[in-house]
Amino acid sequence: MIMPQMATMLCFVMTDILIAADDLKEALVPAAEKTFNRITVDGDTSTNDTVLVLANGLAGNRTLPQKELGDFKDGLERVMGELARMIVKDGEGATKVVLVRIKGASNKTDAVRAARTVANSSLVKTAFFGQDPNWGRIMAALGRADIQMNEDTVDIWIDGIQIVEKGLGKGADAEKAAARQMTLKEFILEIDLHQGAFQEEIITCDLTHDYIAINADYRT
Amino acid sequence: MIMPQMATMLCFVMTDILIAADDLKEALVPAAEKTFNRITVDGDTSTNDTVLVLANGLAGNRTLPQKELGDFKDGLERVMGELARMIVKDGEGATKVVLVRIKGASNKTDAVRAARTVANSSLVKTAFFGQDPNWGRIMAALGRADIQMNEDTVDIWIDGIQIVEKGLGKGADAEKAAARQMTLKEFILEIDLHQGAFQEEIITCDLTHDYIAINADYRT
Repeated sequence: MIMPQMATMLCFVMTDILIAADDLKEALVPAAEKTFNRITVDGDTSTNDTVLVLANGLAGNRTLPQKELGDFKDGLERVMGELARMIVKDGEGATKVVLVRIKGASNKTDAVRAARTVANSSLVKTAFFGQDPNWGRIMAALGRADIQMNEDTVDIWIDGIQIVEKGLGKGADAEKAAARQMTLKEFILEIDLHQGAFQEEIITCDLTHDYIAINADYRT
Repeated sequence: MIMPQMATMLCFVMTDILIAADDLKEALVPAAEKTFNRITVDGDTSTNDTVLVLANGLAGNRTLPQKELGDFKDGLERVMGELARMIVKDGEGATKVVLVRIKGASNKTDAVRAARTVANSSLVKTAFFGQDPNWGRIMAALGRADIQMNEDTVDIWIDGIQIVEKGLGKGADAEKAAARQMTLKEFILEIDLHQGAFQEEIITCDLTHDYIAINADYRT
């Protein structure tokens, strides 16, 4: 990243593998979708995000055969996923990286939309900063996400500690344990909608005083 | 408002006019659409917003005739508009109330969507707090609003001071004048897309340190 304050992201991945151009493209596009297009710092999309992959064939292999393309795809996605996570970690004022996982959505669009709405909610993100397992804010975000859901079937966990079961809080002990987990720099917020079989993830960060300081004072 | 931190809004409008129930409903629904449904503090919709209007007929008039319904509608909308504006002014940590007006949209949906996207952008809202006429952030928000637009036709004003003409900045003097205007507690951000004849407004506030303090420390 050149200027993380601008949310401007220029990503260049270089590999010495010999691979057909079409195969390289077939590897890149879904990897970008699953990595860079699955992170958010503040919901404001930059005007000039770029991802390029360059392969020069210096590895000396014969052109990568189709049967090994899967391995290359996995590797590319892993590298890009790591870079994407670093962007969130480096987000303006961010002190925590949170993986928001939606399970049990009735379709892919709903899964992405639910994860994105929770991950971009200012109230949820300030609760992350406050290390507060405030599931009411999470439920409220889901409720406005325009997805198929029924609050009576929603389960919520923080790093495996269940704080909501069938739409109801699991009580003070569970929340205390979850709050302890939220003191970590990274944790997972998992939500099961129990509406179907689709799962998607968005990586986000907390919303902090430094986000305001950086963006109120910073002038492009 | 009972608990502005919760974004919970209960609005009761009382009038002593004698009016048919159907007419009262016909007055209320579009007024709510144009007032309470056109404000935002942080983009997080509450789970229990309520607007009720009660008319008891004690004014002693004959049931309001159709030809006077327009006046009643105007009055009701004015009252509800004032209440809605007070909610934004009282928003968590808000120091500024900003009316975002979109002109020249190609349809109503685009006009509302553009206004809402700009009004909910964390980068735009922190720029309001920083008193910074940062039109790049406004253009970027429009660009991700999923509307019909062409950046080469966009004009932007702050309280009548034009800072962008046909997608290009009007320069340092204009921005300095606009920045002075942004020191006020209320100002208007007007954007003309030049794509059609539709106009919509959303009232929003700035995003400040106190928003973080209130929402990171506050527990429902």
